[in-house]
Amino acid sequence: MTIEQLAGGLDTVWVVLTAAMILLMEGGFALLEAGFVRQKNAVSIIMKVFVDITFGALIFFAFGFAFMYGKDAGGLIGTSGFLLNGDLSHIQYMISHETYWLFQCAFVIAVISIVSGAVAERINFKAYILYTIAMTGLIYPIAGHWVWGIGGWLGKLGMIDFAGSAVIHALGGFSALAATIVIGPRIGKFNTDGSANIVPPSNLPLASVGAFILWFGWFGFNSGSTLSAANFYEAIGHIAVTTMLAASAGGATCILFTMLRYRKSDPPMVINGALAGLVGITAGCAYVSDVAAILIGAICGVAMVFATEALERRGIDDPVGAFAVHGISGSIGTLAVGLFAIPEFTAKFGLDTAGLLYGGGWQLLGAQALGLVVVSAWGFGLTWLALKAIAAIVPVRVTADEELVGLDVGIHGVPAYSQEDDFIDLSKMIGK
Amino acid sequence: MTIEQLAGGLDTVWVVLTAAMILLMEGGFALLEAGFVRQKNAVSIIMKVFVDITFGALIFFAFGFAFMYGKDAGGLIGTSGFLLNGDLSHIQYMISHETYWLFQCAFVIAVISIVSGAVAERINFKAYILYTIAMTGLIYPIAGHWVWGIGGWLGKLGMIDFAGSAVIHALGGFSALAATIVIGPRIGKFNTDGSANIVPPSNLPLASVGAFILWFGWFGFNSGSTLSAANFYEAIGHIAVTTMLAASAGGATCILFTMLRYRKSDPPMVINGALAGLVGITAGCAYVSDVAAILIGAICGVAMVFATEALERRGIDDPVGAFAVHGISGSIGTLAVGLFAIPEFTAKFGLDTAGLLYGGGWQLLGAQALGLVVVSAWGFGLTWLALKAIAAIVPVRVTADEELVGLDVGIHGVPAYSQEDDFIDLSKMIGK
Amino acid sequence: MTIEQLAGGLDTVWVVLTAAMILLMEGGFALLEAGFVRQKNAVSIIMKVFVDITFGALIFFAFGFAFMYGKDAGGLIGTSGFLLNGDLSHIQYMISHETYWLFQCAFVIAVISIVSGAVAERINFKAYILYTIAMTGLIYPIAGHWVWGIGGWLGKLGMIDFAGSAVIHALGGFSALAATIVIGPRIGKFNTDGSANIVPPSNLPLASVGAFILWFGWFGFNSGSTLSAANFYEAIGHIAVTTMLAASAGGATCILFTMLRYRKSDPPMVINGALAGLVGITAGCAYVSDVAAILIGAICGVAMVFATEALERRGIDDPVGAFAVHGISGSIGTLAVGLFAIPEFTAKFGLDTAGLLYGGGWQLLGAQALGLVVVSAWGFGLTWLALKAIAAIVPVRVTADEELVGLDVGIHGVPAYSQEDDFIDLSKMIGK
Repeated sequence: MTIEQLAGGLDTVWVVLTAAMILLMEGGFALLEAGFVRQKNAVSIIMKVFVDITFGALIFFAFGFAFMYGKDAGGLIGTSGFLLNGDLSHIQYMISHETYWLFQCAFVIAVISIVSGAVAERINFKAYILYTIAMTGLIYPIAGHWVWGIGGWLGKLGMIDFAGSAVIHALGGFSALAATIVIGPRIGKFNTDGSANIVPPSNLPLASVGAFILWFGWFGFNSGSTLSAANFYEAIGHIAVTTMLAASAGGATCILFTMLRYRKSDPPMVINGALAGLVGITAGCAYVSDVAAILIGAICGVAMVFATEALERRGIDDPVGAFAVHGISGSIGTLAVGLFAIPEFTAKFGLDTAGLLYGGGWQLLGAQALGLVVVSAWGFGLTWLALKAIAAIVPVRVTADEELVGLDVGIHGVPAYSQEDDFIDLSKMIGK
Repeated sequence: MTIEQLAGGLDTVWVVLTAAMILLMEGGFALLEAGFVRQKNAVSIIMKVFVDITFGALIFFAFGFAFMYGKDAGGLIGTSGFLLNGDLSHIQYMISHETYWLFQCAFVIAVISIVSGAVAERINFKAYILYTIAMTGLIYPIAGHWVWGIGGWLGKLGMIDFAGSAVIHALGGFSALAATIVIGPRIGKFNTDGSANIVPPSNLPLASVGAFILWFGWFGFNSGSTLSAANFYEAIGHIAVTTMLAASAGGATCILFTMLRYRKSDPPMVINGALAGLVGITAGCAYVSDVAAILIGAICGVAMVFATEALERRGIDDPVGAFAVHGISGSIGTLAVGLFAIPEFTAKFGLDTAGLLYGGGWQLLGAQALGLVVVSAWGFGLTWLALKAIAAIVPVRVTADEELVGLDVGIHGVPAYSQEDDFIDLSKMIGK
Repeated sequence: MTIEQLAGGLDTVWVVLTAAMILLMEGGFALLEAGFVRQKNAVSIIMKVFVDITFGALIFFAFGFAFMYGKDAGGLIGTSGFLLNGDLSHIQYMISHETYWLFQCAFVIAVISIVSGAVAERINFKAYILYTIAMTGLIYPIAGHWVWGIGGWLGKLGMIDFAGSAVIHALGGFSALAATIVIGPRIGKFNTDGSANIVPPSNLPLASVGAFILWFGWFGFNSGSTLSAANFYEAIGHIAVTTMLAASAGGATCILFTMLRYRKSDPPMVINGALAGLVGITAGCAYVSDVAAILIGAICGVAMVFATEALERRGIDDPVGAFAVHGISGSIGTLAVGLFAIPEFTAKFGLDTAGLLYGGGWQLLGAQALGLVVVSAWGFGLTWLALKAIAAIVPVRVTADEELVGLDVGIHGVPAYSQEDDFIDLSKMIGK
């Protein structure tokens, strides 16, 4: 037994377990979204999450990973590692390339899951499969390479994004925004005068399970991004604490703010407020102070409420608040690093940079802003193009009949919930 | 890479992951309670758990932690570590102070969640927020300092409580008892002759998810309390096994005992029986034998059934059995250490003490009994006082109208479950 | 602090955490099954899972473990380790015997849970408790000894089964088949002409939570079976990746295949398809390539669909598809090792063997086939005998009245879901 072997073992345990926690977040996304949508579409949204995981993993294995983390070509794209073969010698960790792949695979699946919520209750299932392939194989991997790939041009310009407020959440959130605009609002959501109608969530306890699972998984998401426990154990504790505090601040702020604004503490807003705090701290979890984390979380919580309202006023229908939570808080979090990054903390990760408030001048903030704009515009634009291209092959939206009856029975042939206590004798039924 | 660095990494991985498991228990509490209460109050209980986590974490960060684990003053209270700043040099582990804080934060949130169940279906939401601040900032931290703080007076008298049968569960359980007495029973629970009425739990599958998540998290709760994997790896295995066996014994006993007593294996009692076993072993998990763990679990299971019945006979309304599970089993578990603690096992943690049945005489049992009485009385008394003080500011109970319509719609403006398939056109609604 | 101590700590952390993940799978089984069955039986299936865990753990502690992993007698049975006492010196790991027991305990509980789904909605609760004792105390431990016990005769013949496609899943699946045949189909499932009737699952979102939890736990199941992170860290990454890919292939295949076959992507089949992929890779996760894992997962997914249909055509009623998922995929996975095992990978675990396609000839494939037949026949036969023997003591099936009213109210006296908002005044009720 050597000390290197032990370090390899420790880092592997750390990364495999945190990757498993992130993959469990898919269960969280599924339940959050199934609880927020109408009962007649609860299964269909869960099936989309199954598409995210299954197709996402296979596509990312086949070529997405290679485009993102393969050998760099011109700062623009990776070129090796298809099917996890080929030259990956530039990736140097104590963990194996397979362990590294698993962790990154959990990330790509999170991105596509963000979009799944925004297109809920109306996207065509086949179109969604095709979009999933585009997102996990091309859209995310390429933008991801720019920031996180060795040699990526945004990373070289000095942009930092510890666990992905920009790369995961702003990209996912702006992609979600494009998707919901292309596909259009649900039937009945808006009146002809532009005013919005409401429908209560079908199952808030289920949505809450989802939120708790997401919160749990986020500790893996943020702390696990160190990719090594042996080298960064003090950072791991700090990351977990900023994650906890930002989520708490986002949730607590929404508890109080909705009490003021709506005269009741609004449960869906509280759930999304905690998630907004988590999204916001994702970029800076390793770089900012505990108090800055609380501030970021609180701002993200309030911003999420305003963004949700603003989208509705503009006639944009985002059934689960994907843009408000991921797009807005991801943007805030990315920029916040440019303000609050502490040089002692960035130095631990070999970076020589600091936020505006810590003597770093405008340089880091500028890189963050540029990177955010690029990544968001890329997500928005490519998703728009992808869905338009897919529309040439299959309809991107279900028929009005399917939408009205609900996608569960309409597309998948089965309701989410059934109180049927006796078998249905098919031989005695007339017609379907 | 040095061996010390590796040890730091290993201990950090251990404590961060187990802390995340304990925080996931909040999801468990939320679902257990949402499943046990009536459908019209399922969201409101989940919102209380959100208050537990979000306000709990922020308050414990601001001052609760300092009062509990800060530099000791007279054995009574901690005095440093506000906002995790100041002198914490007396806390000496391989893990960082932030990692240590995260683990302890998960504990404080568990305590307040115990109370949330007892006041379900009728507490005023604003009063609950204020009580949460009192519990996580003062009541628990001060009593916790006495037992677990370096220099605390009960700890110096020889009381031991490995993961908190007394500090967490008896304190939480007796606080829950005080709270339910102050607030009074739910409308309709008791008839004028004192006889009790029943209402079936709204969602037992959901409550079961909660129990499974709690059971999972308990491995983190008990084993993680070693705070070091490098130093205590044999103990960790033992703790996990006693935890497993006590929970199994509590559940199996309730399966058989309710079959005998009620002629049916009663699902809520079985769920609470397993939890009672877990609560009971929490103090002694590291100190008692496997067989003693089974005995403790079995006794706690049966005692929980009798305690549930006794409370109802006395006109005390505890909707989810918080006192029966946490107060009673926490007490039994605390005392059981005084009987069953094995000197070889306590010695591993630097303690020179043993239970009555292992040659330790009455000394340890006496310390356990004294500590239990003090901690329970403190929880009961301070909760009583806190709620009376809060009542001077806001009503501690919702109005009868809100209670009858349910807190979900009455306070939070949204039902837990909705089968509404179409949008509600607000512009066409009269009133509301 | 020595390097050996650190290795012990690391391996203990690894095994305890993965064991906890496997135990959480019980929550997954409970929800999957509760969601798949009719609403009137949702609690009763969860109560069976409580029996699995609680009785399973206690019986395995008392004697199951000793029969499986105790000192070998003639290759047939273990003979030491009752109550974890006695000579266990042949078990040599860095982890303690207690930690080892916990991990194996999580396995035995998984086996019995497989059977619980097949007998859902009609087995007598007392009979189920007796059968659980037989399975966890004798049936599984003895067959398990043959393959995994030191000195077991099938292991000595060269059979390998990394995490249990045969020992856990084929054994469990064939036991489930025997049980469902002995107990007979549910009332109303089949018409007199042999045609099958259907009933929609009661709660697909709940079943999906179950599947996500199972998927998460499977990383613990497969990767944790290394029992050491220090020695096998490269293998751990590989195992986690093959697990992920096989599950994804199983799920993705079922998404596409049911779309082709039924003109709709069938949610229960997709859920079971991912699980089938997981079952199939369990034997070979450490030994086969990534691409082979995808192939195994895809084949298991399709085979599961055909097996489900075939069972129904034969008048065999398996409410949750336990045999199709565990029996069939477990068999495929066991045999696949005989084809795809790579000598470099088996060598890492000290094995000198290879699959047919990797130059190993027919030897390994033959051992796998023999072992599979033996283990499956043992499970089927002993379960048949056990249930017949139990039938001499208590009825193995509930009465027709209990079945029609549902086991929740009929046996456990409480419905799974209740929308009752007001207390029921028992004193005013006439009769029950």
